[in-house]
Amino acid sequence: LSFSEDCSVRRTPARMAMIGGGGGAFIGPVHRRAAALDGVVTIVAGAFSSDRSRNAETGRSLGLDPQRVYSSYDALFEREAARPADERPDFVCIVTPNHLHAPVAMAALSHGFPVFCEKPLTRDLPDARELCALADATGLPVGVAYTYLGYPLVHEARRLVQAGTIGTVRRVDVRYTQGWLSQPIERSGNAQAAWRMDARTAGIAGAVGDIGVHAQSLVEFVSGEQITEVSADLRQTVRGRELDDDCSMLLRLTNGVRGTLAASQICAGDDNRLEVSVYGESGGIHWAQERPDRLILNVAGQPKRHITCDAALVGEPARSMLRLPAGHPEGYLEAFANLYLEFVGRISGGKSWAGLSHHDGLRSMAFIKAVIQSGAGNGRWRTIQA
Amino acid sequence: LSFSEDCSVRRTPARMAMIGGGGGAFIGPVHRRAAALDGVVTIVAGAFSSDRSRNAETGRSLGLDPQRVYSSYDALFEREAARPADERPDFVCIVTPNHLHAPVAMAALSHGFPVFCEKPLTRDLPDARELCALADATGLPVGVAYTYLGYPLVHEARRLVQAGTIGTVRRVDVRYTQGWLSQPIERSGNAQAAWRMDARTAGIAGAVGDIGVHAQSLVEFVSGEQITEVSADLRQTVRGRELDDDCSMLLRLTNGVRGTLAASQICAGDDNRLEVSVYGESGGIHWAQERPDRLILNVAGQPKRHITCDAALVGEPARSMLRLPAGHPEGYLEAFANLYLEFVGRISGGKSWAGLSHHDGLRSMAFIKAVIQSGAGNGRWRTIQA
Amino acid sequence: LSFSEDCSVRRTPARMAMIGGGGGAFIGPVHRRAAALDGVVTIVAGAFSSDRSRNAETGRSLGLDPQRVYSSYDALFEREAARPADERPDFVCIVTPNHLHAPVAMAALSHGFPVFCEKPLTRDLPDARELCALADATGLPVGVAYTYLGYPLVHEARRLVQAGTIGTVRRVDVRYTQGWLSQPIERSGNAQAAWRMDARTAGIAGAVGDIGVHAQSLVEFVSGEQITEVSADLRQTVRGRELDDDCSMLLRLTNGVRGTLAASQICAGDDNRLEVSVYGESGGIHWAQERPDRLILNVAGQPKRHITCDAALVGEPARSMLRLPAGHPEGYLEAFANLYLEFVGRISGGKSWAGLSHHDGLRSMAFIKAVIQSGAGNGRWRTIQA
Amino acid sequence: LSFSEDCSVRRTPARMAMIGGGGGAFIGPVHRRAAALDGVVTIVAGAFSSDRSRNAETGRSLGLDPQRVYSSYDALFEREAARPADERPDFVCIVTPNHLHAPVAMAALSHGFPVFCEKPLTRDLPDARELCALADATGLPVGVAYTYLGYPLVHEARRLVQAGTIGTVRRVDVRYTQGWLSQPIERSGNAQAAWRMDARTAGIAGAVGDIGVHAQSLVEFVSGEQITEVSADLRQTVRGRELDDDCSMLLRLTNGVRGTLAASQICAGDDNRLEVSVYGESGGIHWAQERPDRLILNVAGQPKRHITCDAALVGEPARSMLRLPAGHPEGYLEAFANLYLEFVGRISGGKSWAGLSHHDGLRSMAFIKAVIQSGAGNGRWRTIQA
Repeated sequence: LSFSEDCSVRRTPARMAMIGGGGGAFIGPVHRRAAALDGVVTIVAGAFSSDRSRNAETGRSLGLDPQRVYSSYDALFEREAARPADERPDFVCIVTPNHLHAPVAMAALSHGFPVFCEKPLTRDLPDARELCALADATGLPVGVAYTYLGYPLVHEARRLVQAGTIGTVRRVDVRYTQGWLSQPIERSGNAQAAWRMDARTAGIAGAVGDIGVHAQSLVEFVSGEQITEVSADLRQTVRGRELDDDCSMLLRLTNGVRGTLAASQICAGDDNRLEVSVYGESGGIHWAQERPDRLILNVAGQPKRHITCDAALVGEPARSMLRLPAGHPEGYLEAFANLYLEFVGRISGGKSWAGLSHHDGLRSMAFIKAVIQSGAGNGRWRTIQA
Repeated sequence: LSFSEDCSVRRTPARMAMIGGGGGAFIGPVHRRAAALDGVVTIVAGAFSSDRSRNAETGRSLGLDPQRVYSSYDALFEREAARPADERPDFVCIVTPNHLHAPVAMAALSHGFPVFCEKPLTRDLPDARELCALADATGLPVGVAYTYLGYPLVHEARRLVQAGTIGTVRRVDVRYTQGWLSQPIERSGNAQAAWRMDARTAGIAGAVGDIGVHAQSLVEFVSGEQITEVSADLRQTVRGRELDDDCSMLLRLTNGVRGTLAASQICAGDDNRLEVSVYGESGGIHWAQERPDRLILNVAGQPKRHITCDAALVGEPARSMLRLPAGHPEGYLEAFANLYLEFVGRISGGKSWAGLSHHDGLRSMAFIKAVIQSGAGNGRWRTIQA
Repeated sequence: LSFSEDCSVRRTPARMAMIGGGGGAFIGPVHRRAAALDGVVTIVAGAFSSDRSRNAETGRSLGLDPQRVYSSYDALFEREAARPADERPDFVCIVTPNHLHAPVAMAALSHGFPVFCEKPLTRDLPDARELCALADATGLPVGVAYTYLGYPLVHEARRLVQAGTIGTVRRVDVRYTQGWLSQPIERSGNAQAAWRMDARTAGIAGAVGDIGVHAQSLVEFVSGEQITEVSADLRQTVRGRELDDDCSMLLRLTNGVRGTLAASQICAGDDNRLEVSVYGESGGIHWAQERPDRLILNVAGQPKRHITCDAALVGEPARSMLRLPAGHPEGYLEAFANLYLEFVGRISGGKSWAGLSHHDGLRSMAFIKAVIQSGAGNGRWRTIQA
Repeated sequence: LSFSEDCSVRRTPARMAMIGGGGGAFIGPVHRRAAALDGVVTIVAGAFSSDRSRNAETGRSLGLDPQRVYSSYDALFEREAARPADERPDFVCIVTPNHLHAPVAMAALSHGFPVFCEKPLTRDLPDARELCALADATGLPVGVAYTYLGYPLVHEARRLVQAGTIGTVRRVDVRYTQGWLSQPIERSGNAQAAWRMDARTAGIAGAVGDIGVHAQSLVEFVSGEQITEVSADLRQTVRGRELDDDCSMLLRLTNGVRGTLAASQICAGDDNRLEVSVYGESGGIHWAQERPDRLILNVAGQPKRHITCDAALVGEPARSMLRLPAGHPEGYLEAFANLYLEFVGRISGGKSWAGLSHHDGLRSMAFIKAVIQSGAGNGRWRTIQA
């Protein structure tokens, strides 16, 4: 049972203000849960929605001081910046649709707030350049949520490539395919689909911007090479779409590396199939997001190795990113959290499952006793009696 | 992107007091992270360790009021029970070694606190009976942390069995094998191993008590049948051990069901291999904890089905236990939380990775632009320029 | 592309006489195909069925001289033994139901023929002892078809255990579960089920005799230890059955090894799930028949290794049992053989698929040309023209 | 146990003459074993090698009449064509390097022989056109060995697509990656590599011709669509190579389908990774050659289905291509054939394993008896005594 007990770098939680992420949003609650997990972040203010009642409701559900729930990000930045240093947000988290990333981020930076922003950074390239210029000028930290770089084994893959385990890199293949946009659900009330397929909110790209950038960031991170040229085939598969929903491309990367990248949201039946392979002169390394706790390392002439999230088997920084011992897959914490939901429900008159009461605990003790007795009695059958 | 945004049953977090779980503990931090995930629990008091400085340090790291960090559970219960209702802990969480479960739980109940307790419930059967009697007398809720019942697909498996999908249950097989006690590490300083292999702290059973009860609780939960008789073969494989480290047994369950259960901690090379199969007259259902986001349902004469954590595919209560859309495996949240650690580290002068800065975001925007241009140009190679 | 081109030990095929295996049999055709694969065996005589016309038809379909197709095994042995040495069968293959194994084998040995026999060796233990006494007295070779010992990676597993890769063996688990006898199909015309569940033809055991012995032979072969004691739970799950269809047992083996064995034919939804695990002091080794070209070797503290059928990765004798290079799974030959069936069908006016004609070959040549041209033209789109 | 006992379309084996495939060849022995498996083909003549002694030796090892082993294909065709109809080969099998396919095939056709030829059909497109013209003029059957079309589940995949199970096809992805040419082994004595990387023997393409055509034939077969345009990126990764060893391309197919194809032999660590995905409007279908007995069918909104080689689950023609019941993976026959090699070795004084003798059979009978007795004795431990 070797693992990293505490990933925290600070003992006093950082104060966060959130822009976007009101009721009905997908990524907002993900950010909030992720921020809560290690106890290093606490939400203190927000402008969650342009819908007044949804905004207020989200603030209430988070237990925020109603004074710190704002109807606009401008108002939030102005008033929060005026607070004393020990109340003021340490940073701003942006989880709006793409078109607002740049204006919100620039406003935040202008008020002196570091920014943690959903991907893609902006709606288009000029916006991104402008934002970067401002960030560099202010010197304030800006982070982009390339989620998949958060997996420990992605870091381990990068480390193994850098360590020469597979030799000089020659070829990469990365795919990110989903099926949820196979049908025109943006025209039947799916809000997530609607803004992603609308150039005003999503920017110049559909699937390429929504998931292609994850593939690009992942393949560059793991291989250590950067894409220098692309030859792409894009289309709007579903009739009537403005933005691409299906894209394939040939890649050329630094140091003569070549490869392929596919980003498609019309791959019906696929859930969230992000997979990367990096081939070097002497081996290949493979990671798939739908089975994130396994890294496959195939060195020519050796048995295929399956590297798991085991602090004894991985190097830094992956090791310090683990919260659990080997064999407790990522997700164990969510399972555990479900127990708390059940119990808190129980003490609040809410939902309750069978299986977790003291009488269940008693049954197990009777089970233990019978087992010990049967074992001591050369396997004689013993009855369980609680 | 269909999922349950908010599993919470209450908007005001429940206040928790924790007994045990000081620095160096395994399960204490797991409880704290799990409790934090959904924002429904907040720690307000604790007696974490009999080591005074470790106790104080744990309290500090959790940001607790030093007045509410106690050197004994007795002191905690007495003084916390005296607080006003809106400050008093809503419940007590017990994460000590096994032998303390009963005395702490009974003291907590006596002071009017509901109890959420690590498994096994107590050290032995008489203690468990006494505790249950008290719990029933007080009427206060008591919960036992059978972690694996927290997985959504375990509930889905139970539901499918109850719905008759595999017909009347006939046979069950469950195994929980680990390798971490293959060597006598309890004699070379491993504290986790030491108390688990010591009858004074662990109780009458070793592997059976530590992991066998998880197997028992899981197989009963999924099959809906209860074990009535056991025929067991136990041993202390590693020389010098007092308690069993390896156990196999034949099972007889209610309604004529039969089966097997293995619980072993000397299965070298295994991490945390908890696997359950339930067979009915017309099919079988299979779940493995090391791949928890997949449930295999094999109905005779039909293709084998792999059921994933997809709100569109599972029934209640599994559906309401999901926090993410299909294809985002449990663990996505931990990955995401790692991004927050990185960013909070960055704004605090702490650790920082490549790959998440605004310049990385800018690169992606340049990538998008080149892709869109290449696509528009019938696949002509385009250079990426940030 | 390293592999064993030719497993043969002799250049002149051995002449085989077959007893049993007439039309409708399961294992007879399997034997014939397996015997044909390497060209080392040729069938020259047979007594395939007590049904006269089925017997004759099987002989005809195999292209046998009608004079060498016999209505009884006695007649066959008598007359074939009288043939000149260069015509006489080199051995006899027995593929009848169990109850005939002993009498046929003993008659064969009495006439001087080596015997290759289906498992289990006989109907019960006394028969087996008698047969062994005769075999030993004659000194003639007798083989038993423990099919699963034919897999190269089973030999590799044994070799790795013997080489100490996992340390001293401590525990074994083996399961062989099928679902095809979940319902009383022996009462609705399934001939395979009927004789297996009839004590007159199958002997004293049902599932234990039919598949339990495969599990026993496999676990002993891989672990190098022999089962010395069993504690078993058997039953006739399906009402009205005479013989066991479901069995679980605890095992004790030589050198203090312990373990479990399950053999069941009422595991609905399972096909042919034979899986073995052997644990030593420092690691475990795992093989599953439904994925036979992969051996999992987990040594504590090392990445999990997946060993495949690659001559460069396995030792003797597995290496010399491979017929194909790595990555060409066992089954490639069957796929290839299907091409021959198609083509022979075509030249005989029989069945024919799309996809294998010279026009398909031509298409591929046009594809190659277009690819080469596009590559030479910096990826310009090229049309394929056959 | 439902399966196709006999795939044969004719009872008298077809007579085959083989050109190429002398000692040291890879694909020749594969053809011979595949042709032998079902007993529908028998080799009667050959011109195996231009090396006189290797040629003679191969003929001897196959038990051929030395008169029918020829030093050139011309001689073979001339003299074999002159034989009486009931001796004359029914067809010619060509397993030479690519550059000889066309001249040999055309000579065979000119002498009236049907042709079964390795892929690619010829060295280049003009040769292929000429050969096709001749084949069409003669009306004689010509077959091309697109091996992977021989897998039952490839046919099932095609059938499911045609049946509309995944809706109208929109996208395909196919990859065929190997690692065996990662290093310049053609310059250190590997004959297989040498002719494949030599334009004189291989033709105009390297990886594209060797494995790319398998990918092309497979994706067209399964999807039912034909590739109409390609945009390719090719290179000679290993310095000094004349032909491509790494290739990626974008595809456009009939009916607006798009996709990708990768064919590379420098993917170090990959064995023979041929994988195809076909996406339609409502689902996707996936097959991987390294796990050929499983077809994944993901229909949106339904559990993922894993279709296995089970006659009860697949339609025609896959059903009639199965030789074994469900759960007996392709490869079972090879395992079984290894038993024959062992036994034939034993009666010939050759190699012999432990585990297959009558004493092993006897042990199993003692095992059965002890199990039955223990079961009858409520699980009392019983000793095994042979």
